[in-house]
Amino acid sequence: MSSLSAANTPSRPARPAPAAPAYNELTGAIRALAMDAVQQANSGHPGMPLGMAEIAEVLWRQHLSHNPANPAWPNRDRFVLSNGHGSMLLYALLHLSGYDLSIEDLKQFRQLHSRTPGHPEYGYTAGVETTTGPLGQGIANAVGMAISEKLLAAEFNRDGHTIVDHHTYAFMGDGCLMEGVSHEACSLAGTLGLGKLIAFWDDNGISIDGQVEGWFTDDTPGRFAAYGWQVIPNVNGHDAAALNEAIKAAKADSQRPTLICCRTAIGMGSPNKANSADVHGAPLGGDEIAATRAAIGWQHAAFEIPADVYAAWNARAAGAEREATWDKTFAAYSKAFPELATEFTRRINGKLPANWTKNAQDFITATQAKAETVATRKASQLAIEALAPNLPELLGGSADLAGSNLTWWKGAKGVSANEGGNYLFYGVREFGMTAIANGIALAGGFIPYTATFMVFSDYARNAIRMAALMKIRQIMVYTHDSIGLGEDGPTHQPIEHAASLRIIPNLDVWRPADATETAIAWVSGIQRADGPTALLLSRQNLPPVANKTPADQIARGGYVVSPAANAKAVLIATGSEVKLALDAQAALAEAGVGVSVVSMPSTTTFDKQDKAWRDSVFPAGLPRIAVEAGHPDGWYKYVGLEGAVVGIARFGESAPAGLLFKEFGFTVENVVNTVRGVLAN
Amino acid sequence: MSSLSAANTPSRPARPAPAAPAYNELTGAIRALAMDAVQQANSGHPGMPLGMAEIAEVLWRQHLSHNPANPAWPNRDRFVLSNGHGSMLLYALLHLSGYDLSIEDLKQFRQLHSRTPGHPEYGYTAGVETTTGPLGQGIANAVGMAISEKLLAAEFNRDGHTIVDHHTYAFMGDGCLMEGVSHEACSLAGTLGLGKLIAFWDDNGISIDGQVEGWFTDDTPGRFAAYGWQVIPNVNGHDAAALNEAIKAAKADSQRPTLICCRTAIGMGSPNKANSADVHGAPLGGDEIAATRAAIGWQHAAFEIPADVYAAWNARAAGAEREATWDKTFAAYSKAFPELATEFTRRINGKLPANWTKNAQDFITATQAKAETVATRKASQLAIEALAPNLPELLGGSADLAGSNLTWWKGAKGVSANEGGNYLFYGVREFGMTAIANGIALAGGFIPYTATFMVFSDYARNAIRMAALMKIRQIMVYTHDSIGLGEDGPTHQPIEHAASLRIIPNLDVWRPADATETAIAWVSGIQRADGPTALLLSRQNLPPVANKTPADQIARGGYVVSPAANAKAVLIATGSEVKLALDAQAALAEAGVGVSVVSMPSTTTFDKQDKAWRDSVFPAGLPRIAVEAGHPDGWYKYVGLEGAVVGIARFGESAPAGLLFKEFGFTVENVVNTVRGVLAN
Repeated sequence: MSSLSAANTPSRPARPAPAAPAYNELTGAIRALAMDAVQQANSGHPGMPLGMAEIAEVLWRQHLSHNPANPAWPNRDRFVLSNGHGSMLLYALLHLSGYDLSIEDLKQFRQLHSRTPGHPEYGYTAGVETTTGPLGQGIANAVGMAISEKLLAAEFNRDGHTIVDHHTYAFMGDGCLMEGVSHEACSLAGTLGLGKLIAFWDDNGISIDGQVEGWFTDDTPGRFAAYGWQVIPNVNGHDAAALNEAIKAAKADSQRPTLICCRTAIGMGSPNKANSADVHGAPLGGDEIAATRAAIGWQHAAFEIPADVYAAWNARAAGAEREATWDKTFAAYSKAFPELATEFTRRINGKLPANWTKNAQDFITATQAKAETVATRKASQLAIEALAPNLPELLGGSADLAGSNLTWWKGAKGVSANEGGNYLFYGVREFGMTAIANGIALAGGFIPYTATFMVFSDYARNAIRMAALMKIRQIMVYTHDSIGLGEDGPTHQPIEHAASLRIIPNLDVWRPADATETAIAWVSGIQRADGPTALLLSRQNLPPVANKTPADQIARGGYVVSPAANAKAVLIATGSEVKLALDAQAALAEAGVGVSVVSMPSTTTFDKQDKAWRDSVFPAGLPRIAVEAGHPDGWYKYVGLEGAVVGIARFGESAPAGLLFKEFGFTVENVVNTVRGVLAN
Repeated sequence: MSSLSAANTPSRPARPAPAAPAYNELTGAIRALAMDAVQQANSGHPGMPLGMAEIAEVLWRQHLSHNPANPAWPNRDRFVLSNGHGSMLLYALLHLSGYDLSIEDLKQFRQLHSRTPGHPEYGYTAGVETTTGPLGQGIANAVGMAISEKLLAAEFNRDGHTIVDHHTYAFMGDGCLMEGVSHEACSLAGTLGLGKLIAFWDDNGISIDGQVEGWFTDDTPGRFAAYGWQVIPNVNGHDAAALNEAIKAAKADSQRPTLICCRTAIGMGSPNKANSADVHGAPLGGDEIAATRAAIGWQHAAFEIPADVYAAWNARAAGAEREATWDKTFAAYSKAFPELATEFTRRINGKLPANWTKNAQDFITATQAKAETVATRKASQLAIEALAPNLPELLGGSADLAGSNLTWWKGAKGVSANEGGNYLFYGVREFGMTAIANGIALAGGFIPYTATFMVFSDYARNAIRMAALMKIRQIMVYTHDSIGLGEDGPTHQPIEHAASLRIIPNLDVWRPADATETAIAWVSGIQRADGPTALLLSRQNLPPVANKTPADQIARGGYVVSPAANAKAVLIATGSEVKLALDAQAALAEAGVGVSVVSMPSTTTFDKQDKAWRDSVFPAGLPRIAVEAGHPDGWYKYVGLEGAVVGIARFGESAPAGLLFKEFGFTVENVVNTVRGVLAN
């Protein structure tokens, strides 16, 4: 598209390209691997790896504290490629540094089931700290990782025993900086004084549509200064010495995150394509690769790296030494503070406390015994109150709705720039919050929970998806889960959200009906180590309904909460509509029509149950009617064409909640008539 | 939550409150109406109206150019309440200024079907320019309105004939400024030099969780200066003279948008609750209302406004005069440029050109005749090329993916700060883009189309929803619509997105199978004046399939594309899977099993068809099997429990597209086997 933008955007003088780098086999290896792998795949993004090669070399060889032999070493520096399309840069770095990523893996770039997918994917490749590609979220993940470091240090370090002390580095491009989530995350990073967060801006002046002057003219140094960051402007991103000094200055400021502004040429080294959008996302082609080889003085065949280059890059010895040094520190710590050391190890490994199961079960039992009438958002707060004191890894937060989401609890302590704590005031930043919490979960040591109004899960949606894709733990507390929120009206009333959250693969979704189901949902979310959990919670009070069912049945996500002799149909309901279904059941029973009632707090959990359980909940031959104050379409997989759904397929209205439930047909009368209509067919 | 944050956030001295305003009946009326209406509803947000009363009074009485008798006057200033929870401020202003909003309407605040819903809703209330509440989107809408003004002025004004010349004003709070979408929109506003956009920051230092110092410490003036805005800092938001001077200075700068930073006290006038989070979102209570009345010297009963106060507020005479003056200007313009005047009127009224229907039908006919094999994203570009030359209101754009979304066309001209055009380079700002385009649609004169990769519709999701809620026209071009995008992998492959878009109420969704269906989808989106349309388009080439069906059948959203004699089942497919279904049909036919094939480009459109049509597409008694490279759950409403879905319920993978379709079961063999399985039951 460069021709397009050249022709149609305001004409400005081309930005002067930094002087081409001197011949350097270390960066040459990066450039060659990146352009050759993209060429071999006939797909990918060579521009960024070529443009950031010097930055990567200086950071990884002179500063990054890591151990390629153990990508899980707790005190490693974290490295995040927020401009994840430049994945070949990261794969080249991992390979050259000695991670478990062979040259054969690089040859499989972007091939099915390879370790080198198109964008870096957490869990696929040793050394990839997070999945990136959706722009702006990587820097938000990095903010979360830096928060994790800061809080673990505050909690576990002791005088003379510094076991948590590492940096988090992030690369980002213009795209990340244009995305709103970068504003949310970087603003909060400034407020929290994340002095060990160091971000590099790949200021190459090019995005996919061409020279960014037509659509991105921020004074980015000024913007980050406004966030309270240390800003190091005007660094030549191809000058190793200048980069080294910049990183030193960044590390020297322990009170503020640092942005290093690196002026680079995208595709640096490519004689004919550098500094153009053409080099961003397409292979260079054979001729240009040859020309680039000549220009950068790289005389080796594709995927051939001379032994001395490997040797210069290899970080295994240095890494082993770093970890050995830390091991000694940790051994001394373990001797001085044996309980803390054990706890630290547990936390880093993501294991729940020994007393967890008993605490959780006791709590669930207690909710059944109490049988309180409470809003499920309140029940959620009761769950936090009950579980958190014995679960110090629980790290709370809300996007400026602590008092509405009820995520604050008696033992909560707000995190600030100067003090640790267990609760983050995320501000009105739903997307940033969720992506930051993903970073916290990835860094280890904490189980983050986040919160907003359910309708504003929309703002965070792609970060929810990323948590699910990465199979990481985060508990998302979404309150005000239906028209039941009342007067705030359709902008604040989720209609399609339960259905649309349930179809994000690997996201568990619970919409509990009462305090017991809420307790079970919370316990499920905490115990689920391989994915996130969303809790959809009511604003309004709900009576107990699940207090007589064994908890292990409820935990299956769908169960018969009220059977009927001679049932002619099955009523399925969730959340606030379970009580309505029970009332309809009673009304039908009076009229001589038996229906059983299934509470279905978690369709995603129910769907994972064995066939025997599912068949026991939904006996063959009985028609089914689902009742949920949300979009009906997701329910037809349970009720089929013969059943019916009492749902809402239009936007809500502003009015008191009680009136709205009537207006939208959530009445015993309508449910009864719907059942009768199905039975009459 | 103020106690919470006071106890747990870094303790800082309270910000000095601005001096309380002198007694003023004009602002007193606003404060009284706001607090009384919230009290009567027992629900709402009094803090903002009380805090912004002076700002509102100065703007509305001394600067806002509007005509309460005609809220549709084309050259009115636009006013956007981005902090929409303060809706009672706007309702009070509309009522006092003489809009069609009675005191009885105000008494119905937040009641069912009233004109005064909890948040301002476009279409419910005369003078409400956009629906706000979801924070940050209002300011983005305002940016769109200012773009519309700028482009209409560039297109229609002539020397000595200035028919388009108005300002766009927006109020916003800390919440809007924390949201990432404010970054996206305000950054672009700076780049585009929107000199007639004037935003007021309600800098009251309070958000719902308490004093914002714990989570929001941006140097906001510095941030907006970095965007290229004129920033007027440190204005006392309760000092009418200072505000007046600030607005004059804002209007004097025609090259840059202006941010007026207004230091205010939330809840100003409430003796015991001002400057606290308590006043944000709950009624003051009877005692505090009495105390506030005493403090501000307002001695009238609830909902009683003295005649002299009404008279001082009433803007009908001035408004009529303004519009009359403009009418003269427009009459002279009409005389000098009759065709332009007619065109302007057509555009403002949102009517399509006289030749539209013929052009559209000719184009559809041509695609059927050509029967090209093209990617539907390319077919979309062909549609733009064909339709746009006769549709000057089409205002394009993409979030930095013009060359991938194929939204650029031969007649496209990029908009810049200095020149008009018909294409916006939105930059990597999906959410901002969509919300800005909503503002463009609301302002009138344009039909905006926007574009990104389909998976990143996630980033924009709540703005998509807002377009649907407001019933405004926007065409959303979402390309790379499945695993068919290939190597970029799961971060870029939509799985759940088609299903989740289809359940946003009032959003039309099309996933066309070929160039003809794409043409029909585009035409449908342009003709649809009462809601947005999303087009889900393939990266990869697709053969013609709809070239032999009458266009009016295709336009129904679902139709039999290939019947079968003695059909035993119906195969339903969309987009890239229609050809697969046809191939499976052929394979089954060879084996003696007749199945018909239904192409279902738009489930949302199909669902609106009459029963006769739906029954003709899905004959009773025939089992159905849906095939779509997306999440299956939405399809059970068509196939029921007896049918089956060939879909994808997990995340994608990075690999060449052809391999992925095999990997995920999109093969003739698997579809045939699925049909056989259904028939065997």
